[in-house]
Amino acid sequence: MIVFNARGLMPPVFTPLNDDLSINYNVIPAYAKYLADNGIKSVLVGGTTGENMCFSVADRKKVADAWVKTGKTCGLHIMVQVGGAPLSDVLELAEYCSKIGVDSLLTLPELYFKPQSVSELVSYVKLVANRAPNLPVLYYHIPSMSKVELNMPSFIIEATQSIPNFKGIKFTSNDLSECAQVLRALKEDQEVFLGADTLLAPAALLGVKSSIGTTFNLFPRLAQDILVAVEENNVAQARNLQNKLSLAAEAHTIEGAWVPIMKAGMEIVSGIKMGPPALPQLPISEEAKKRIAARLKTLKLIN
Amino acid sequence: MIVFNARGLMPPVFTPLNDDLSINYNVIPAYAKYLADNGIKSVLVGGTTGENMCFSVADRKKVADAWVKTGKTCGLHIMVQVGGAPLSDVLELAEYCSKIGVDSLLTLPELYFKPQSVSELVSYVKLVANRAPNLPVLYYHIPSMSKVELNMPSFIIEATQSIPNFKGIKFTSNDLSECAQVLRALKEDQEVFLGADTLLAPAALLGVKSSIGTTFNLFPRLAQDILVAVEENNVAQARNLQNKLSLAAEAHTIEGAWVPIMKAGMEIVSGIKMGPPALPQLPISEEAKKRIAARLKTLKLIN
Amino acid sequence: MIVFNARGLMPPVFTPLNDDLSINYNVIPAYAKYLADNGIKSVLVGGTTGENMCFSVADRKKVADAWVKTGKTCGLHIMVQVGGAPLSDVLELAEYCSKIGVDSLLTLPELYFKPQSVSELVSYVKLVANRAPNLPVLYYHIPSMSKVELNMPSFIIEATQSIPNFKGIKFTSNDLSECAQVLRALKEDQEVFLGADTLLAPAALLGVKSSIGTTFNLFPRLAQDILVAVEENNVAQARNLQNKLSLAAEAHTIEGAWVPIMKAGMEIVSGIKMGPPALPQLPISEEAKKRIAARLKTLKLIN
Amino acid sequence: MIVFNARGLMPPVFTPLNDDLSINYNVIPAYAKYLADNGIKSVLVGGTTGENMCFSVADRKKVADAWVKTGKTCGLHIMVQVGGAPLSDVLELAEYCSKIGVDSLLTLPELYFKPQSVSELVSYVKLVANRAPNLPVLYYHIPSMSKVELNMPSFIIEATQSIPNFKGIKFTSNDLSECAQVLRALKEDQEVFLGADTLLAPAALLGVKSSIGTTFNLFPRLAQDILVAVEENNVAQARNLQNKLSLAAEAHTIEGAWVPIMKAGMEIVSGIKMGPPALPQLPISEEAKKRIAARLKTLKLIN
Repeated sequence: MIVFNARGLMPPVFTPLNDDLSINYNVIPAYAKYLADNGIKSVLVGGTTGENMCFSVADRKKVADAWVKTGKTCGLHIMVQVGGAPLSDVLELAEYCSKIGVDSLLTLPELYFKPQSVSELVSYVKLVANRAPNLPVLYYHIPSMSKVELNMPSFIIEATQSIPNFKGIKFTSNDLSECAQVLRALKEDQEVFLGADTLLAPAALLGVKSSIGTTFNLFPRLAQDILVAVEENNVAQARNLQNKLSLAAEAHTIEGAWVPIMKAGMEIVSGIKMGPPALPQLPISEEAKKRIAARLKTLKLIN
Repeated sequence: MIVFNARGLMPPVFTPLNDDLSINYNVIPAYAKYLADNGIKSVLVGGTTGENMCFSVADRKKVADAWVKTGKTCGLHIMVQVGGAPLSDVLELAEYCSKIGVDSLLTLPELYFKPQSVSELVSYVKLVANRAPNLPVLYYHIPSMSKVELNMPSFIIEATQSIPNFKGIKFTSNDLSECAQVLRALKEDQEVFLGADTLLAPAALLGVKSSIGTTFNLFPRLAQDILVAVEENNVAQARNLQNKLSLAAEAHTIEGAWVPIMKAGMEIVSGIKMGPPALPQLPISEEAKKRIAARLKTLKLIN
Repeated sequence: MIVFNARGLMPPVFTPLNDDLSINYNVIPAYAKYLADNGIKSVLVGGTTGENMCFSVADRKKVADAWVKTGKTCGLHIMVQVGGAPLSDVLELAEYCSKIGVDSLLTLPELYFKPQSVSELVSYVKLVANRAPNLPVLYYHIPSMSKVELNMPSFIIEATQSIPNFKGIKFTSNDLSECAQVLRALKEDQEVFLGADTLLAPAALLGVKSSIGTTFNLFPRLAQDILVAVEENNVAQARNLQNKLSLAAEAHTIEGAWVPIMKAGMEIVSGIKMGPPALPQLPISEEAKKRIAARLKTLKLIN
Repeated sequence: MIVFNARGLMPPVFTPLNDDLSINYNVIPAYAKYLADNGIKSVLVGGTTGENMCFSVADRKKVADAWVKTGKTCGLHIMVQVGGAPLSDVLELAEYCSKIGVDSLLTLPELYFKPQSVSELVSYVKLVANRAPNLPVLYYHIPSMSKVELNMPSFIIEATQSIPNFKGIKFTSNDLSECAQVLRALKEDQEVFLGADTLLAPAALLGVKSSIGTTFNLFPRLAQDILVAVEENNVAQARNLQNKLSLAAEAHTIEGAWVPIMKAGMEIVSGIKMGPPALPQLPISEEAKKRIAARLKTLKLIN
């Protein structure tokens, strides 16, 4: 039986790039250590933040290799997102990951011939899960990007019935009402990872204990403190810290698209070289970076 | 200066109908007393639950009259929703309400020539607010029905600048991230009323203290207990009670459209005769009513 | 049996307003004569162009009265659009129209409690049709405004089965593929009126002989010439004339929303005083009007 | 200067598969000959019909090789669609195609980090076009699948200014009004290919002379006859033939998704083995195939 035990805050890692847009593998060990030193126990490789939808299969394999190797050293659970490419590549990646020591898989839905029903989506995820039968497999629900907007509670029930290694979903939507329904539909050994940095505290109140959020790269301690405040029944503290994290996110979002702004913010906050976003996305301007830094200072999130 | 002081749980009242679909004014005093006896301090007349978008101006005036009269007796703040009709009627209703003792107004956006920008929406709400300059006026954001999906934080800032008696919004959306932004955009004497029964507790954690939700008609004490649990820093209790209210809502929603199911549920729970929905909506079947009652018994919400 | 015999080009008439936004009934006889003199045989009163969704029931009755009276003089078939208001008002208007000599009815769907299925839409149209059993009743499909996007061929089949006086639809969409399916679904005595001024010629090629288009107010002869060109198998002529009409429409559309620009254009072209749009819509600027006039001169549509 | 001279009917070719879902290259020469024998002068390889969004880069290269080789023999212009994959793969394919004798390129937009503006889309197409500077490059507008719904006339103007080898678009939408605007925005040496089998005749009336439609694989002579009828000013004939082609399409569409039904229909009509669709799509049932065949017999399209 497949056991899936990653829980709590899971940063979706950036893929560091050199200025020539090649992948900068050298920085990964330092990046992993920074996360582990800040209390992080698991990471998602190749999600939206990791821009895997822009890379070749060969590069995606090398990135997975690098994180698996480093993850062993730091004691990180390595989840790899294998979707967002032609299905033949997705299947090849799933099989590859099943052999190199990846701990769990996440997959987007088909992006072109989009599933028109819950059954079609289950059928797709099953194809992927069958290629990595030794790994826990989760589904990546992110309708704002994938434009696949199916009912998640129904999906979970049907996927659980037909996919032995189906272990949950990443739920990237601000609809906590549906997220609570997802939670009620999950079995003991399955998990929902919220994907909404601005809703960490209210989701925790509803019982959502795990999250995948880009800002956990930048502010892992703050995110952890939010969960602790809810755990300790300190509502006012949870609200204040959530407000702080939300304002930190907004300090970035007014400057552009999610990955370019967050990649810039990560460099500002951590000092670790992230480089530009992968094409077709473009980096934000130096002026925008300065404005972000100024706002983070005002929020006392950097010195 | 216009003072707006309604806060907390505000049930949007049903419009009771006779079997011939005429409005049953006789039941309103008992209905109001039931709410007041259960701790309710304010009601919304003629919202989605009240089906005002189906009635003539003459009927809407009579309904407002009846609630104002009864509200005085029971000490209820009476907010009336005046939108969802041709603008000339909306303006006539706003002016009428300003003269009969209504306490505050709520208005939907234009439903046909929908505003294409925040400015156009502000312009519409201003027309309404100008007809009732002595009353607090709030905007009814419910994109799932109105199909007007503009950015609410931006709207609030612009509306506050140009409408003296603009006092807040009803925010009927499950996006608590935007709701928190709305909260941060509001001034001291303005209020956001969440319109999402399944998110009362998580919204309260974020600082949202007021709500307009149909289920507060059916379960006013349960809804109040949720707010108290959050207030008292009892997260587990808040979660359990919210789950109960959410399951109570789901006990209805699988049987049909919102107003027909809730009108049926209100009869089951309160024993007060609500009658069928207004045309074009149709009542649910007797079998569906029995299934709802059975589920509510299982949830120990009725005996 | 109800006979419906309006065919061909049917301008949806503007509702002329005075500068104080009251309805200018005085201009209606001249307006009707202008249309009749230009070969028009039927008009739609109170459609989108007529802004009926902004007026009270009382005003809508008076407008219908005025057109019926004038229509008799000019020999115009008078179709009245009764929807876009609370259902109780829609039903009152349908009944009123059935008694005053209106020739046919058109109705929008419910704008707030929108039909979720073809059956719910049929149920709504049936309620309206039953109030005017002596009149042909057509459905107004305009998903861009009503946000009711149901399959029209299916609707027609089901409506025809259950509504004796159902006689067709106004199809306001640029999807001529669905329009052709509609045409194939209609019975002998039913009609589809295209609502797409820029597609008059290609629709005619497909067999769509009737149209309701705002620009037929401004350029009734040009529109007629397009139909004649198709009828006479002169494809190049049809294309050239359609291009001319389309460019005439574009001369307006870059200046604002449909009714304000077209109402302005109608004054420019016909010299008949149309006045401002009804609230909440606002008139375009004098500069915009001049730019429209200049473009129409370039197109040799005015001197 | 890059010359682009493909015009007229361009079938988007299927990618024939063996029963084990491997690509069946052997059938390509016979397939190409069938098309050439039926008057076809150019084909699109790897569009939606060709399911390139499901295959690896290696397979896509081999498919392109096979068609280039066969195309030379048959005198077919070979356009290859290179998008619908991670950008790094798209660029690799564009470069590859530029070297092997492909005649022109078509590209989808980015499917995950979707362009939010016309400028972002131009930037993407420019990246692709720069990798194949010796080839004409066209953009594949298919909002129903790509969910990229930007204004095409604006895109064309901006793309033409900044991409020297930009030569037009495939316009897969039923909105002939926007298609006519596209036509007016194009320069002499650019072309719009309509992607709407049911609108061939009305588009031709508007001056659209080129089309890419799946059914041209099945019924190349019928499609050609439609264009001839319009060319010869025979409107009734154009209408009748278009109706026939549209009914032939509908004979398939009620049985499932586009590629599985059309792949089945192609086998029925041409006798050439097409095999199942590529995963994640599934083949239709044998019963569905029989129903399609029966309908095509009724339409006298097969014996």
